[in-house]
Amino acid sequence: MNRQWRLIRRPLGIAQLTDFDLAETPIPVLQNGEALVRVEMLSMDPTNRLWLYEQPTYIPSQGLGEVVRGLGLGTVVDSKNDAIKKGTKVFGLLGWQDYKVLTPNDFWSPLVEIPGVPQSWHLGPIGMHGMTAYFGLLDIAKPQQGETILVSAAAGAVGSLVGQIGKIRGCRVVGIAGTPEKCDWIKNDLGFDDAINYREVTSLTDAIAKACPNGIDIYFDNVGGRILEAALERINLHARVVVCGMISCYNESSGDGYDLHPPRNLLRLLYQRARLEGFLVSDYFHRAEEAVMSMLNWYQEGKIQYKFDIVSGLENAPETMNKLFTGNHQGKLILQIANS
Amino acid sequence: MNRQWRLIRRPLGIAQLTDFDLAETPIPVLQNGEALVRVEMLSMDPTNRLWLYEQPTYIPSQGLGEVVRGLGLGTVVDSKNDAIKKGTKVFGLLGWQDYKVLTPNDFWSPLVEIPGVPQSWHLGPIGMHGMTAYFGLLDIAKPQQGETILVSAAAGAVGSLVGQIGKIRGCRVVGIAGTPEKCDWIKNDLGFDDAINYREVTSLTDAIAKACPNGIDIYFDNVGGRILEAALERINLHARVVVCGMISCYNESSGDGYDLHPPRNLLRLLYQRARLEGFLVSDYFHRAEEAVMSMLNWYQEGKIQYKFDIVSGLENAPETMNKLFTGNHQGKLILQIANS
Repeated sequence: MNRQWRLIRRPLGIAQLTDFDLAETPIPVLQNGEALVRVEMLSMDPTNRLWLYEQPTYIPSQGLGEVVRGLGLGTVVDSKNDAIKKGTKVFGLLGWQDYKVLTPNDFWSPLVEIPGVPQSWHLGPIGMHGMTAYFGLLDIAKPQQGETILVSAAAGAVGSLVGQIGKIRGCRVVGIAGTPEKCDWIKNDLGFDDAINYREVTSLTDAIAKACPNGIDIYFDNVGGRILEAALERINLHARVVVCGMISCYNESSGDGYDLHPPRNLLRLLYQRARLEGFLVSDYFHRAEEAVMSMLNWYQEGKIQYKFDIVSGLENAPETMNKLFTGNHQGKLILQIANS
Repeated sequence: MNRQWRLIRRPLGIAQLTDFDLAETPIPVLQNGEALVRVEMLSMDPTNRLWLYEQPTYIPSQGLGEVVRGLGLGTVVDSKNDAIKKGTKVFGLLGWQDYKVLTPNDFWSPLVEIPGVPQSWHLGPIGMHGMTAYFGLLDIAKPQQGETILVSAAAGAVGSLVGQIGKIRGCRVVGIAGTPEKCDWIKNDLGFDDAINYREVTSLTDAIAKACPNGIDIYFDNVGGRILEAALERINLHARVVVCGMISCYNESSGDGYDLHPPRNLLRLLYQRARLEGFLVSDYFHRAEEAVMSMLNWYQEGKIQYKFDIVSGLENAPETMNKLFTGNHQGKLILQIANS
């Protein structure tokens, strides 16, 4: 059987199990030109929640009744397309399901297996998350040696890489995270200069001022809202604020990503002649090799560490996605639904 | 006598007469190195209100008890400094007062009188406002022919120039203003392609969509808040939002410029890979000649029109400043306090 999670109702606020339906359908029979992929790992990312909105985001909206959109890894187990050979490992939009019928028009690419590097890294440092950190920091923010970088969701799939790349580039790096364990990890294992547990400080602005005595030159934002506001209070002249994500508002009850606690101090951008800039990794796919080779080299030089939080079972997909927003995960969250 | 408006209390919300004191003091006796300037015109700008905050903005805070900070034009009527000759016309931070004691360390520059160009234009198109429009649009937003520019406070001292420069550069230009008269003026006299009276539309977002059928490539923002939010709803891929001012929040009751109605859709910057960038004209003073010569040429070619709203009497300074925020002015607001 092919189990498929389908979206049957647009979530308002945190997604509920009743917003989805886990259907069991026969394993599809292939038509000419198609290949069958056994989905093995699903990447669980905050952006999954954006894709459930009725309004288009940066891609068209997911349709009601359709298989829930999701990135993942899998193996071609059957093929009626000479260009997609049986046994090929693939990465792409495979969906929350056991089997994906793949055509050349889908969003996917074959995976190059790299000796000594776990396959899961393709859903992390040498995949889209690595590219996101690499280009978001180096291309959008352009850090200079000695500058101060603040990053939110700093123990997360992207934030943890941003901080490590920032250290490689000779910057002071401060991370914001939500548990003592995450703060310990980024500071003691990843080499961040300082870490702030935003849940434990009485004033985040004061904590940032203390951890960034020379102010903030780059704020790499994964969170938005009032944490963005606190960071804006401390930006330096010509600071660059990279909008990589705004997870604090993805589950707002309005169901459209409208931030109900937006930063009230955008005037600081004027005072400091600073910019707030959004970016998407998909604009950098043509430069993927540059990022992936850099990440691989840094990994082999022992300069990049990464942590996965792997949950098992397709049946747990909705709850696993929700873990991203409560902060009850450690590192890059993956749903393993079959062995590779 | 030298009448001087002094700040005696920080305004909360709209400035009150009781926040100021109009003192009468003797005309100062000059020390060596000083010059005495008869202040003739004061430039009334939204930024005057920012300067009254307790917190520093882009310059240090104005002190309580001090003469209210203000830009203006005047004439040197006495001098004990060979470098500041009697009869020189000057522009600078002269303050809300009849006479300013000028030293070489103050912020000022001598004015070049240009035949055929009224002196007031130095407080407009060929002064800081012209430079603000010129560099904010051309240097920060870099418009390309055929792009759509939306500008708020479009009939104002800066906005009216932004739109005209945008037309010169071959863009579609749409302005947002607050009265039918302002909309008529920018559309029929200044050549804007369309004008939106934000006070008369039921949905500003819909009105923007209608006036900008190809979306917004550049939003030149003088207003902030919910008008910024409406504009963000319609930005195109790689749009540039120039933060020139955010007058909608300058009079918030918090007294610090915090926006109590900030845009809730900053996620649109991510979706559209767009940027929001603050700038200050003072960063461009070294390129003043480029802007001033361009504005003069365009004026002489009949491509730039400008309108002044001139109020008389130093005693009216606080109320005149407040006119900027009710929209009860037409064009660049100037307080004339003496004949030149």
